[in-house]
Amino acid sequence: MWADAHLKTRQKRHTARSHQLERAQWRLVVMATARLVLLAALVAATAWELPPSLRVAAAPVAIHALRPLVGSAGDLGRRGGVPCDSWRLAVEANNKRDWKTVPADCEGYVGHYMLGGHYRQDSRVVVDEAVAYAEGLKLGGGGREVWVFDIDETSLSNLPYYATHGFGTKPYNATSFNEYVLEGSAPALPETLRLFRKLIALGIKPVFLTGRTEDQRAVTVANLRRQGYSGWEKLLLKPLGSKATAVAYKSGERRKLEDAGFVVVGNIGDQWSDILGAPEGARTFKLPDPLYYIG
Amino acid sequence: MWADAHLKTRQKRHTARSHQLERAQWRLVVMATARLVLLAALVAATAWELPPSLRVAAAPVAIHALRPLVGSAGDLGRRGGVPCDSWRLAVEANNKRDWKTVPADCEGYVGHYMLGGHYRQDSRVVVDEAVAYAEGLKLGGGGREVWVFDIDETSLSNLPYYATHGFGTKPYNATSFNEYVLEGSAPALPETLRLFRKLIALGIKPVFLTGRTEDQRAVTVANLRRQGYSGWEKLLLKPLGSKATAVAYKSGERRKLEDAGFVVVGNIGDQWSDILGAPEGARTFKLPDPLYYIG
Repeated sequence: MWADAHLKTRQKRHTARSHQLERAQWRLVVMATARLVLLAALVAATAWELPPSLRVAAAPVAIHALRPLVGSAGDLGRRGGVPCDSWRLAVEANNKRDWKTVPADCEGYVGHYMLGGHYRQDSRVVVDEAVAYAEGLKLGGGGREVWVFDIDETSLSNLPYYATHGFGTKPYNATSFNEYVLEGSAPALPETLRLFRKLIALGIKPVFLTGRTEDQRAVTVANLRRQGYSGWEKLLLKPLGSKATAVAYKSGERRKLEDAGFVVVGNIGDQWSDILGAPEGARTFKLPDPLYYIG
Repeated sequence: MWADAHLKTRQKRHTARSHQLERAQWRLVVMATARLVLLAALVAATAWELPPSLRVAAAPVAIHALRPLVGSAGDLGRRGGVPCDSWRLAVEANNKRDWKTVPADCEGYVGHYMLGGHYRQDSRVVVDEAVAYAEGLKLGGGGREVWVFDIDETSLSNLPYYATHGFGTKPYNATSFNEYVLEGSAPALPETLRLFRKLIALGIKPVFLTGRTEDQRAVTVANLRRQGYSGWEKLLLKPLGSKATAVAYKSGERRKLEDAGFVVVGNIGDQWSDILGAPEGARTFKLPDPLYYIG
């Protein structure tokens, strides 16, 4: 008897919840439809008046956001090739590993992501987190706190190279890439430079730790200086001929830093291999990079 | 003299590269503009004929994808509040930690992400990776390989609850959430169920490892069975009154599995605390979850 009543109460509650859910869904449908009409009006009204930055980035992002959604209702998404935004998310969350090239279908998507404002916006949110974390640290007063920075796609951007080499869709070409590196012309990632300067102001010492090799020291120093980086504690480059993986090499160098009495309070890189492997650093930050994978 | 000639060659190469880059950017502008016009036509033509699933999800995603891009040219993005897609990426890449609620501005964004096809599509790509990895494993033949599954937002979805409770924008309410759990009505995440069944077919044993407590065993078993899960090796629930963090509790249980002779070949969860902490499992997979954070 009690069980029956209890069951009915439950069913009633369940029905009420279903109705609530339906109402929530319908509210979303109505909101969405209103926004769609607004978007249509906006697009129609401004198609040719948009600033160039928006013209580059907005339309394909919208299209790429739409494509997997169409497929999601059934299996249609498969026909349209790789869902590029899901691919990128899988890369950023370290689900997709050991990939050699960006899927060919995603060249346009990645290009727009990188050259439009999306990449910058994603990087900004990461650096905002890093700055907030750094500002909240209680330092020991002995000047032992360091923050590890990767270089390529973290401190310096090789986008000028990748923009003319298929945005990661072509296999890595060591010759042409190293030629580009030796120009020493890579621009700073502005968000990372902001973090770098903030840390120095706070009394936390930046240490560069890069897979670039020792023979590229001079050009790397010149490039970093030219781009506004100064005041770093160390610049650690990989010994020529080292066969260590990125994780082994980089975690080994962080271990040496700790053995020398430094405290690695933060570590920022664009590859998971920059920030995995003990000691990782007290807190790690993963910048976006849909261009290439280093294991 | 040589240096001069060398410098000139370099400058020429640099100028050529700049032109190449400009051309690449212009090509993108032209492509983008063409697509924008196409999109406008598409939107105008189909605004009222779109299937409901698309009506729910497409428009706001487009709007939310646009919003941060506008800001990215300068600092305008800040005025519009939180850039929700960058926030979600920061969550998924473990850059954003210890957050209590979804930003209020992002309720619509998260709602459309979860109820539209985007969440499903992102989950599908993760599970595709997991299946490919599992299929490539060489098993020992002794039946010792296990795969750890989290439950909430991994094996079972609490979306029916969150859809009627602000999509994570409201503080966690243990009373109403536990009431929902005790209904035992949470649907399976279809992609995870696909992985679960695939693993059993391959001879890899699923082990559930959840932060749900021991007193919820019966309802959890019933809910899992009702949703099509069967044939698991173990269901590990947290002892009542345990004060361990998720990372400490879950890595401790994985340690016990390994001590008992199991090999944890895979581990899948929606929280970083499901998959961090040695032994993590030979390979880990992070499902999307923009609804809540468990540290």
